[in-house]
Order: sequence, then C-alpha cells, then structure tokens
Amino acid sequence: MEPGQRIERALQSAVRAGEAPGCPPRLAAAIRHAVFPGGARVRPQLALAVSLACGDRDPVLADAAAAAIELLHCASLVHDDLPCFDAALTRRGKESVHVAYGERLAVLAGDALIVMAFQSLAAAGAHAPERLVPLLGTVARSVGMPLGIVAGQAWECEPRVALADYQRAKTGSLFAAATEVGALAAGHPAAAWSDFGQWLGEAYQVADDIRDVACDPALLGKPAGQDVTFCRPSAATDLGLQGAMAHFNSLLRRATAAIPDCAGAGALRALVRAEAERLLPHTVTAEIARLAA
Amino acid sequence: MEPGQRIERALQSAVRAGEAPGCPPRLAAAIRHAVFPGGARVRPQLALAVSLACGDRDPVLADAAAAAIELLHCASLVHDDLPCFDAALTRRGKESVHVAYGERLAVLAGDALIVMAFQSLAAAGAHAPERLVPLLGTVARSVGMPLGIVAGQAWECEPRVALADYQRAKTGSLFAAATEVGALAAGHPAAAWSDFGQWLGEAYQVADDIRDVACDPALLGKPAGQDVTFCRPSAATDLGLQGAMAHFNSLLRRATAAIPDCAGAGALRALVRAEAERLLPHTVTAEIARLAA
Repeated sequence: MEPGQRIERALQSAVRAGEAPGCPPRLAAAIRHAVFPGGARVRPQLALAVSLACGDRDPVLADAAAAAIELLHCASLVHDDLPCFDAALTRRGKESVHVAYGERLAVLAGDALIVMAFQSLAAAGAHAPERLVPLLGTVARSVGMPLGIVAGQAWECEPRVALADYQRAKTGSLFAAATEVGALAAGHPAAAWSDFGQWLGEAYQVADDIRDVACDPALLGKPAGQDVTFCRPSAATDLGLQGAMAHFNSLLRRATAAIPDCAGAGALRALVRAEAERLLPHTVTAEIARLAA
Repeated sequence: MEPGQRIERALQSAVRAGEAPGCPPRLAAAIRHAVFPGGARVRPQLALAVSLACGDRDPVLADAAAAAIELLHCASLVHDDLPCFDAALTRRGKESVHVAYGERLAVLAGDALIVMAFQSLAAAGAHAPERLVPLLGTVARSVGMPLGIVAGQAWECEPRVALADYQRAKTGSLFAAATEVGALAAGHPAAAWSDFGQWLGEAYQVADDIRDVACDPALLGKPAGQDVTFCRPSAATDLGLQGAMAHFNSLLRRATAAIPDCAGAGALRALVRAEAERLLPHTVTAEIARLAA
C-alpha cells in the first residue's frame, strides 16, 4: 500500500473511533471537517518515509504514529484559525472549522484531536509497550511545553522573540517528531533523525512565510498577508523576500546533509527535492524575481 | 505523606517540567495560574483514595495518574471559561485565565495542559508499561470522543440532549476515570470501580447545578446563574430545586452502594459522606428549604 493510502486509512480509523454511538454529532462533523480532505500530509509522509528508510518493521505502529502527528497538526490549525488568533475564514480551500461549525465547536474539535492523537497511538502501541513509551514522549514533547507547537504559538503573545526559536517550536518541533517517530516505530533510536526533521521543518516555515507575502489566497487555500496583519515573526519580513529565499535554500541543504547514512537515504533526498518544488514552485520563485526586479 | 500533599507534589512536578529554559514565560504563567492554587482537588483525591483502598502498590504511578486527571480537569475549566462558552470572569475566587492572560493564552494553556497530562503520565509509567497502556486508554477515553469531557461540553452545541447523557460525559466520565486509574495504578482491574466514580460524578454535577441556582458568587468562587443564562441542561432547571436535591441524594446512595468490597471500603464511604457535606453544606440546603417554603 502506498504511504498516502496508509496515512488516510490510519486517520480514518482514529476519527471513526470517536464517532461511536453516543457521540455529539456536530462535534464529530467538525472533527471530520478538520481532518478530511487533508493538505499535503507532509508530516505523516515524512514519518512513513523515515520508517521505510529504517526497514518499516512495525507498519501498524508507524501508521498510528504518523496519524498522531497529523491529528496534532490539524488541531493546531483549527485553534490557529480561531477569531482570537488569525481569524482565518478559509483553510485548505474551504471554510475554517469555526466558520463552518462555530467557535465553541472549533475549540472543542482542537481539544478532541489532541486527545485522539494520544489515544490512537496508545491503542496501536499496546502490543509493543517498549516502543510506545518513547513514542509518546516524543509526540508529547513536540506539541507541548516548553518547546513544542503550543509554545511556538505562545511566542506570538510575548513582547520579544527570536525568529529561529519561534520557528523551531512552532513548526520545526513537529517535523522533528515526524522523523523521530518514523525511526522509533521501526525500532531505531530517534536521536540521529531529529536534525533532519528540524531543518526541514524550519525550511517549511520559511517557505510558508514567503508564500504568505508572494502568493494569492487562491493558491494558498487560506488568506494571504497574515504575518504582516498580525505582526508575526516572519523570515520574509526580517530578511526580505530574496534573503528569505536564500535562507530557505540553506535550510534545505542542511536538512539533506542531516539525513543519516542508511539504505533509504537516496529516497529521502528525493523527497526533500520534491518538497522544495512543491513548497515554492516555479510560479512563486518567478514572482519573487519579478518583485525584486 | 498525606494524599493532598502527594497530589500537589505531582502537579508541581508536571508543571515545572514545562517551565524548562526556552519556554514562553507568559504561557508558563497562565498554566500555573490555571493549576495553582487548586480547588478541592476532588478527582485526584478520589483516584488516590481508590489506589489506597487497593493497596497503593505503585504510589509514583498513582500520583502521576491522579495529577493527569486534575490537569485535564483544569484544562476543561480554562476552555469552559472562554468568552465563546461561559465568558466567566472569575474561577476559584480569582480572575479566570482569559481575563488574566488574554484569550489566546487561555486557549493555548488548555491545549498545553491536555498534552501535559499525557506526557507526565507516560513519563511516570515508563517503568511499568503493562500498567501504563490501560491507564492511558482510560484517561483518554474520559476526556475525548465519543463519551468524554469534550463530548459532554459539545452537547451544549446540539439542539437536543438528554440530561443524563450530558452529565455522564461532562462530569461523570472524569470521575469514573479517577476511580479506574486509582485501581489500575495499584494493579487491580478497573471495571469494578467505574460505577462508583460515575455515580459520584453525576452527584457532583447535580450539586453544581443546585449551587448555580441557590448560591451566591462569593461562595462559589465563580459566577452564579450560569445554567439559565446559557440555557444549559441542568438538574435544577429540569427537576426543580427540591427534585434536584432528591436526585442528588439518590445518586450518592448509588455511589456508596457501588463501592467494591475491599479493605478500604469504609474509608471510601466516609469520603462520600464528607464530599456530600462539602458539596451541599447546611447553609445551602437551608437556603433551598427557605426557597421552597
């Protein structure tokens, strides 16, 4: 089965478990709206790519870990879009959850998705508790305090923040966790895989900053110009578009160099190249060149 | 060490782990505000009381499980108080988190507390993975979909709901989990302990409904009259104050009858009696009698 199919199947399984008889139907619908259809599923794709590069010795656990990472990403999107944060009306080309279901169900859907991530991971890892414990620790660290997604988001509420710290927590942490859980699920130590995910995550965030400035909303599937509107730390604001492009390319080189020596290293390098083209396709880089001229 | 001290120590340990260097200081402060000083800590007290009744064979795990239950309760309070839900200005006799730190940090503090609950439980259970897996499942079930706290809260967003279903999910589920994790941490099966927690939790919710109508805000430490204001399902609204009192007493009888036969059963019955007096003290029952007259 293709990694993309494995991811969707694991996500369907996790979401369906929450739709058992007795559940409140509107919250169930809001959760489904938040998870399906997905975006590029880049984090779980990364997790499975690393698991495959490490021999994919426990596909059930790898799929559940990849799905847990994606559920936590979806939770962060739902809460980021709330009126008190970005007040985003659209996400992935459709209404954001709070627009479609109201603010209360958006708060609850995010909460439920966080719980679902840990619940589905714990259930899938019951047969391998010695691997489950580090997996849970890695996933929790990437999303909680002091250095996970919620910490990254909270830096937006501080008077001062270093751009790199902010991006490392807000985006790098979950990418690092994606590579680490891929290794852990396959029975490999996680430490060697962290830098690869961390650099790729920072590159992803810089690309997002660039797209926020250089792209139109139809291409993004969400509003553009949000970083300036909300005075958020942004590589495009700090470094200018050309500087941000150079930083993006430098982060990609570091990510590629950080791929551990293994049988699947070639496939992972190809994944990085494909992601680079997907994140900043020719139309966008051409637009940046035009703006710079 | 007294159960109350064990609970505070475990909560301090969990919260402190999130305050490591590099954390965003305002989110750290908001989390601390949400957890300390606590209310009656009734759920973790219940968890430890059951663990003690079952022999308390793994106090470290019991303390962590009790703390996880309380962290999830605190998370639900922070999100319940948000402007889109109850818009409560006070909680536990001081400003609610969104009033003290703003709405964004209140959303993030709730999210961080949910993650912290699973993280601290996973860390404390690493030495006993065979007990950790059912503990995680029990805790997750009590707070997530389809029948946990978030589901209970979501029933407020549905056009129709049965009062018992709502109260079972919104309050009963976490009380049931408290009794179950106490048993599980001590190496006992959880099933026999679920009904005791469930009935006690429903009694607690009915008492809360009664206090919402019959108490003044200074006694509650939070606004009164919220159920009518927000058209929430309420035993006091459905049954009248006298009817709700009768229902409360009936639920307490069922809770007491559901205590499994064990060496600590007498202590648990005493705990139920003490809770009943704490929840609806003489001043409140006298007020209800006055209103009925």
